Amino acid sequence: MATVGTDRTAVTVIGLGLMGRALAGAFAAAGHPTTVWNRTPGKAAELIASGVREARTAADAVSAGSLLIVCVRDYDAVREILAPVRGALSGRVLLNLTSGASDEARALAGWAGEHGAGYLDGAIMMTPPGIGAPDTVILYGGSPDLFAEHEQTLRVLGGGTTHLSADAGIPSLYDVALLGIMWGTFNSFMHSLALVGTENVAATEFLPFATSWLGGVASFMSTYAQQIDKGEYLAADATLETQLPPIGHLVHESHARGVDATIPEYTKALIEKSIAQGHALDSYARIIEHFRPAAR
Amino acid sequence: MATVGTDRTAVTVIGLGLMGRALAGAFAAAGHPTTVWNRTPGKAAELIASGVREARTAADAVSAGSLLIVCVRDYDAVREILAPVRGALSGRVLLNLTSGASDEARALAGWAGEHGAGYLDGAIMMTPPGIGAPDTVILYGGSPDLFAEHEQTLRVLGGGTTHLSADAGIPSLYDVALLGIMWGTFNSFMHSLALVGTENVAATEFLPFATSWLGGVASFMSTYAQQIDKGEYLAADATLETQLPPIGHLVHESHARGVDATIPEYTKALIEKSIAQGHALDSYARIIEHFRPAAR
Ligand SMILES: [Ca+2]
Ligand SMILES: [Ca+2]
Repeated sequence: MATVGTDRTAVTVIGLGLMGRALAGAFAAAGHPTTVWNRTPGKAAELIASGVREARTAADAVSAGSLLIVCVRDYDAVREILAPVRGALSGRVLLNLTSGASDEARALAGWAGEHGAGYLDGAIMMTPPGIGAPDTVILYGGSPDLFAEHEQTLRVLGGGTTHLSADAGIPSLYDVALLGIMWGTFNSFMHSLALVGTENVAATEFLPFATSWLGGVASFMSTYAQQIDKGEYLAADATLETQLPPIGHLVHESHARGVDATIPEYTKALIEKSIAQGHALDSYARIIEHFRPAAR
Repeated sequence: MATVGTDRTAVTVIGLGLMGRALAGAFAAAGHPTTVWNRTPGKAAELIASGVREARTAADAVSAGSLLIVCVRDYDAVREILAPVRGALSGRVLLNLTSGASDEARALAGWAGEHGAGYLDGAIMMTPPGIGAPDTVILYGGSPDLFAEHEQTLRVLGGGTTHLSADAGIPSLYDVALLGIMWGTFNSFMHSLALVGTENVAATEFLPFATSWLGGVASFMSTYAQQIDKGEYLAADATLETQLPPIGHLVHESHARGVDATIPEYTKALIEKSIAQGHALDSYARIIEHFRPAAR
């Protein structure tokens, strides 16, 4: 059943949004017998032209592949689609690439196990056009043996195919943690563009300063990660104390120019709180203590 | 007066904190006749050993160099030091490398002009140990002619010596705008470390995912900067609408794990506001409109 006239794993993709179509297209292009299904029909035309088979029913789709990939709106949609066909899951591997929370992933892993299916959960850290690219990162959780069994197939989707943990909930957590860094960086970037924009500096004019600066920021992140793991935050320079005047200037520039100061005010409060707790001579890595659950 | 037994500009550095000492040391190492002065004496011992002269008074210091660099705690300190010696400023160039706000830099430029001094303002985007390195960025504002006259001397301090604007206030604005991106990224990084830390993922374990991810974030920033300059935000993928479920998951993971959710809640509010205004199919670049003064 796993192979149909080829040595490559037969794959089913349920969910034909932008991402699902990109996944199915990549498998078909790599020579995997590929079956697709979508709750609303009519999304498969291009895929069919490239050799993908469209199943008539969800049950037909599930039966067609040994590796069943689901990539839909949310975990509720996963459950609604799979519950009626749960009798067909036994002996297959369910790979859920739907975005969700870690507790949802763990619950679904348990449900799949109850129905005799193996379970992997994955987080795609890329937009659909990047599927199949060498630097596309997809993070997996679940049984290391199941992952090893399908790793070659999964590498079709991206060169950065990485197994994180036997815990199926971990990819979802990494997913939002990385997205959080993205949004945080975007927000501060937009805030800064608005500030320099008040002096008619174009976004593309400021951009090279910002992106080159991020290289230095990443290097500090590396230093801070080591300090955080050691629990020792003493700074040689760039102490929290020395950052109090410039964060004050940033708040001032924001107010003076009519730009929302929520972000710098939050930063200022974090620095002030840490200094008040006696950490004036520590590096910014000390701020981790604010976020750690035990310290709050 | 500008040269003393050498063809290199005589430089005075006032302020011998970590940064002032690094500046003076770099000039001396490059063969510039270098004079230093600090309000509190006793900071110049190492510099004197490497050929730097310590002036006995501020007036003596000002008279010793044609390029007068001031790097002290804040602009009030600059004023307090320079006011009594203002009579000696005429015909010299004052380069202020003290951190401050753009309005303070502009006011000081005006004051220097009233006393017959040229004025440049600079923002050092590096910690003291980086002074003199090829990739160290220092941003300058003020007369382009004055900058050109001293550019070769200033390159001693860092390879990334850049003149931004005739406006002396612009470097201070870039300074805090870049620091804002740094703090915003640090805060989100710490938030994410706290989240994955609840699953006993070490900071150094998560780090490579975060830093490699920042490369992709920078590439989006480039796309967004172009959209922002055009005022056209239509997205092919990664619309604001598609980011609503994952930001909800990040808020949920934060609450569920006892990690301060202020940052993701702010992001969620920005996305929801923009969608409510009819921009569901736009890219994240649309968020700039929240920060632009006119739109608030
Ligand atoms: Ca997932
Ligand atoms: Ca400055």
